[in-house]
Amino acid sequence: MAKINQNYLKLPGSYLFSAIGKKVREFEAANPDKKVIRLGIGDVTQPIAPKIIESLHAAVDEMGKAESFRGYAPDLGYDFLRNIIAEKDFRSRGCEISPDEIFISDGAKCDCGNIQEIFSTDNKIAVCDPVYPVYVDSNVMAGRTGTYDEDRGQFDGVIYMPCNAQNGFAPDIPEETPDLIYLCFPNNPTGAVITKDRLQKWVDYANDRGSVILYDAAYEAYISEPGIPHSIYECKGARNCAIEFRSFSKTAGFTGLRLGFTVIPKDLKLEGVSVHGLWARRHGTKYNGAPYIIQRAGEAVYSDAGRAQVKEQIAYYMENAKLILEGLKSAGYEVYGGMNAPYIWLKTPGLMTSWEFFDHLLGRANVVGTPGSGFGPHGEGYFRLTAFGNRENTIEAIERIRWL
Amino acid sequence: MAKINQNYLKLPGSYLFSAIGKKVREFEAANPDKKVIRLGIGDVTQPIAPKIIESLHAAVDEMGKAESFRGYAPDLGYDFLRNIIAEKDFRSRGCEISPDEIFISDGAKCDCGNIQEIFSTDNKIAVCDPVYPVYVDSNVMAGRTGTYDEDRGQFDGVIYMPCNAQNGFAPDIPEETPDLIYLCFPNNPTGAVITKDRLQKWVDYANDRGSVILYDAAYEAYISEPGIPHSIYECKGARNCAIEFRSFSKTAGFTGLRLGFTVIPKDLKLEGVSVHGLWARRHGTKYNGAPYIIQRAGEAVYSDAGRAQVKEQIAYYMENAKLILEGLKSAGYEVYGGMNAPYIWLKTPGLMTSWEFFDHLLGRANVVGTPGSGFGPHGEGYFRLTAFGNRENTIEAIERIRWL
Repeated sequence: MAKINQNYLKLPGSYLFSAIGKKVREFEAANPDKKVIRLGIGDVTQPIAPKIIESLHAAVDEMGKAESFRGYAPDLGYDFLRNIIAEKDFRSRGCEISPDEIFISDGAKCDCGNIQEIFSTDNKIAVCDPVYPVYVDSNVMAGRTGTYDEDRGQFDGVIYMPCNAQNGFAPDIPEETPDLIYLCFPNNPTGAVITKDRLQKWVDYANDRGSVILYDAAYEAYISEPGIPHSIYECKGARNCAIEFRSFSKTAGFTGLRLGFTVIPKDLKLEGVSVHGLWARRHGTKYNGAPYIIQRAGEAVYSDAGRAQVKEQIAYYMENAKLILEGLKSAGYEVYGGMNAPYIWLKTPGLMTSWEFFDHLLGRANVVGTPGSGFGPHGEGYFRLTAFGNRENTIEAIERIRWL
Repeated sequence: MAKINQNYLKLPGSYLFSAIGKKVREFEAANPDKKVIRLGIGDVTQPIAPKIIESLHAAVDEMGKAESFRGYAPDLGYDFLRNIIAEKDFRSRGCEISPDEIFISDGAKCDCGNIQEIFSTDNKIAVCDPVYPVYVDSNVMAGRTGTYDEDRGQFDGVIYMPCNAQNGFAPDIPEETPDLIYLCFPNNPTGAVITKDRLQKWVDYANDRGSVILYDAAYEAYISEPGIPHSIYECKGARNCAIEFRSFSKTAGFTGLRLGFTVIPKDLKLEGVSVHGLWARRHGTKYNGAPYIIQRAGEAVYSDAGRAQVKEQIAYYMENAKLILEGLKSAGYEVYGGMNAPYIWLKTPGLMTSWEFFDHLLGRANVVGTPGSGFGPHGEGYFRLTAFGNRENTIEAIERIRWL
């Protein structure tokens, strides 16, 4: 008799963004005359840049001719893309990452969700609180946690590291030693960044304890201030203890194209085994490469024209972030983030819970945001807005919130 | 201290096709003057059909304009694609499958590899022998098997169901009852098919024992003879016990575009839990949808023009299959498959092992095939050739083999 993976039943309710989507659809069905503005899920609104579109068309044409048709991609990605990433994202910043340490994939969400597979189910994980739900949920599914404690709003057996205004939303070293440490900077959902000194402390700690840092740098392109690390490999010793995830979703608007990559340095060894080799084996067995045309689109992001166009888009979103930050501040809200990240993290007014504020905002201002408590108990009383809307909607949303 | 997933270390060597790729690259480096013909890995050679290329270009253009840009796809796929699949692949054959029972993905390999996650690690799996390596390897990684027995060439704790000339390369019901049963028809690697009567017996058996059938129908489009089921849902009761995997890779040459889907009927329940819901949760948490432009390409496959063009490609490959079958037969080889599948399964001559024949064929005829033993111990003494080459190469390869 076939049996299900009971760990799935530990997950309360549905995935956060699916739950929000359902609420919004219901509201819209009941209020067809209302114009809802979405600043909730972190989806972009700017179209794909012209240089990338040009590259997509060229690659599509190649697929239509026998002499240039491409079938299965190399398991770990095309060299043209791995080479340019190693050069432009890492070597140019002084990070010693070689092309064959880069694994091309269909996005950072998949990689962040799947990476835990190559580690033992005995490992204890540590996550920031609040946190992007995928890190915890994928470990729950794998049986690396206990059950969900409704009162605490946390899973047993997981080390939650509170991130709050006191510690600048960057976690302190926990009392109990974790085996796998998930860090994400610039942070989703808080929009916070970590200084190089503090990140170096984490790297030193991981090397000292034999822990592995799973570093999500999906929002790296939004860093505007100097002195903030773009990659964990800017820290000494990170090649021995860190895996880094990168995404084209927010960098170049690829949420609907799907492209990302994971870096696993060959120096990262556990019990004498190369972690790089384990991930290569997973890729080879359970994955079949990102589409050729999408990898060509990724390559175009690094061209001079592509880079300039993409920078313009990021500047556009960051202007939105500035408008949200300033608008909310002048309306009396306590706000964080929005300087080096496309996320604004605001304190809900008075004693309102995050979901109460969600309903309030949706019902009264017809604006969709993300309840902070959806990211963990320390997110309770907070709310996330994104800078990914278009200018007009962003301005209108802030106006509506100001008049609440 | 972080620990690795020790189950990965049970896997002997590398993934079969990676191992072949390495051997071929080494041969080519040592023999730059030799023209190697690849009939090994099942990759297609015909370019993407014109109607699909047209659709890709149109979708790319949409992505370049703000008003038609699409970000994150719906978790489970766009309705335009799910609807047309339900209609054309299932309802038109009398199979009651609704659009929301179809999960769009980036390919059947990923789905076949990931599906085991939603089941308990206690489940016992049964696979055909020989078999597509992903079924077994993904279960090894999850700890659902014992260690690899070098002598037997099998993993402990797995039920291997021999497929040979006697049973027409379709497995008999095993003595021990499996929880999860992997079946693939038309079969990779043997090219065999299963009759509806025999498949119905498997469905009845699964319903009787409470087992789940994981049915890989990636090669369904190659069925040319009547009376062969295209979907397991043509069998009565399959909605209660079967999951089906489909692919666009071999149907429409999407190996480099990446698109597939998995069908999980809502009637499939285990321990009172909807398996459909578990897979939806996995998709929502660890996957982010297939690219919009690729889903539009998939839609074009079902248009009248797309369907006609794709049928022509399949006919082209099946003409290759016929040439290989007849050429090898007239050269005295014992051959199977190739009638309803793009694979030809041949007995190696004399006492040659599969890998000996691989080396012989590569070294003497400069033709790449796949050693049968790479698919399991009952594949020893067999060899797989694919019909996916172009006509000229296929003819030349057969000529070279005939003169060996």
